[in-house]
Amino acid sequence: MLDKTSVAERFKSIQDSICSGLENLDGKSSFKEDLWNRDGGGGGRTRIIQNGDLIEKGGVNFSAVQGVLPDNIKQALNVNSAEFFATGVSIVLHPKSPLVPIIHMNIRYFEMDENTWWFGGGIDLTPHYVIKEKAKDFHSGLKSICDNYNIDFYPKFKTWADDYFFIKHRNETRGVGGIFFDRLTPKNTALNEQELFDFVASVGNGFVDLYTQQTEKRNDSISETQKEWQKIRRGRYVEFNLVYDKGTKFGLDTSGRIESILMSLPKDVSWHYNHSPIVGSEEEKTLSLLKKEIDWVSA
Amino acid sequence: MLDKTSVAERFKSIQDSICSGLENLDGKSSFKEDLWNRDGGGGGRTRIIQNGDLIEKGGVNFSAVQGVLPDNIKQALNVNSAEFFATGVSIVLHPKSPLVPIIHMNIRYFEMDENTWWFGGGIDLTPHYVIKEKAKDFHSGLKSICDNYNIDFYPKFKTWADDYFFIKHRNETRGVGGIFFDRLTPKNTALNEQELFDFVASVGNGFVDLYTQQTEKRNDSISETQKEWQKIRRGRYVEFNLVYDKGTKFGLDTSGRIESILMSLPKDVSWHYNHSPIVGSEEEKTLSLLKKEIDWVSA
Repeated sequence: MLDKTSVAERFKSIQDSICSGLENLDGKSSFKEDLWNRDGGGGGRTRIIQNGDLIEKGGVNFSAVQGVLPDNIKQALNVNSAEFFATGVSIVLHPKSPLVPIIHMNIRYFEMDENTWWFGGGIDLTPHYVIKEKAKDFHSGLKSICDNYNIDFYPKFKTWADDYFFIKHRNETRGVGGIFFDRLTPKNTALNEQELFDFVASVGNGFVDLYTQQTEKRNDSISETQKEWQKIRRGRYVEFNLVYDKGTKFGLDTSGRIESILMSLPKDVSWHYNHSPIVGSEEEKTLSLLKKEIDWVSA
Repeated sequence: MLDKTSVAERFKSIQDSICSGLENLDGKSSFKEDLWNRDGGGGGRTRIIQNGDLIEKGGVNFSAVQGVLPDNIKQALNVNSAEFFATGVSIVLHPKSPLVPIIHMNIRYFEMDENTWWFGGGIDLTPHYVIKEKAKDFHSGLKSICDNYNIDFYPKFKTWADDYFFIKHRNETRGVGGIFFDRLTPKNTALNEQELFDFVASVGNGFVDLYTQQTEKRNDSISETQKEWQKIRRGRYVEFNLVYDKGTKFGLDTSGRIESILMSLPKDVSWHYNHSPIVGSEEEKTLSLLKKEIDWVSA
């Protein structure tokens, strides 16, 4: 079994390098850190960047918490053990420009006892305007990270992301997806524990490059229609996170630090009654691409 | 047992009179109606008012739906019968001015068979700025409606509202509460079925007067701080509706008409990381009053 302190330390250093990479990329704003402790045990380092040249509001959070699992979480996870340890890095970035996508990443390690532990995580892209070539870049990058470890990972985790990042009541995917995985162990991955850990770390280490290639249009001029559309799409992001996201629910149920959990919500958001994009518009085209099972790598 | 068609007809006429009263009160905008049918049976009349002098975005919805209950709803309601009929009027109004409260009302009738039917409903007020005298007016009005039918109603339903309209992860009530009731039958109310129906109808019929007395400051001038605070408080409203509200969950789970359900979400909303009002400000005072068990009638 991996040493949980080592896992947490490596996750911390991934947080450090991502924050430093994003500050470089933004060029204007920098992260502010809030350290916090959890009543039941453990704590975290919440790092928030705001009002940047690229990022309007974003967080790169590390946490390592332990203690006794609440009964509802035990049921949801289908586990018996009462004690748990969980550590992870979670990122959500809301860019200023509607021409740059929202991005989310999470890597996590969960342990109950020497026989019950796993890794989980994922990364997905939510463009306000879907551009096929950029979605292809993103998925190709993810495929190449996955292929280094197991050729079956990308197709499996891509489908998992399509199913997970899905807004059922809208019949829309959240964006163009990415990869999602949970409860990975040596048994179900054909990797030893160190290789598995390396795979998860490589998802984290690939983050800054993957996002950088999505930010080329950051300085293009923006219309009022595009600005309003961004706020509408952010509304869908809020709907997903508050209605469906398991990480958010886990955080709210375990009395995590609320502001660290809900940093995922964008600053300015709008809901219009029965909004429907103009036929033939870029907004309508984006809606038509918010579907599962698009093969972005070959798009 | 009441005739379900009569219940639906009376609810429709309550919708009519509320819409007409609110158009008078607004003085500028009027309701637009969308009629819809539900795949499994029934439908509704969604009426939306937007960009008014008083109301920025609001809906007064009637629906009467029937069909087969999904399994998850049967479990949640703890009922066996597969067939159901449900009719109700639901209102959420988001005013333009932060000095006017958000208001919500719902009255509903649910029937499975001649032995299994009930009324439910509620009305609650969410001021962006809590003013004790106005909260007292609101609760006194509700108490007087309740007292006409059963002297035990107001204290019981007021406590029920405190518990229901509670944002657990923020440890805040949604606003100053009001009344909430569910599964009311002749057995548990000491009213006969007609009196019970009259009570529920009188909640609906009292709505316009109750809201009118909350709108006196609608034309007062507004600062940027007040406008931003309104958007932050609207964010809490979104959190409640998407995370906790059973009506919203019921709608999403039964594949109701999404735009009619989510009309409850305000137009412009903001989430600031770790926002904290200035010590001694009106905003801070409001936060200190978002607590359960305040006796507003005697405040």
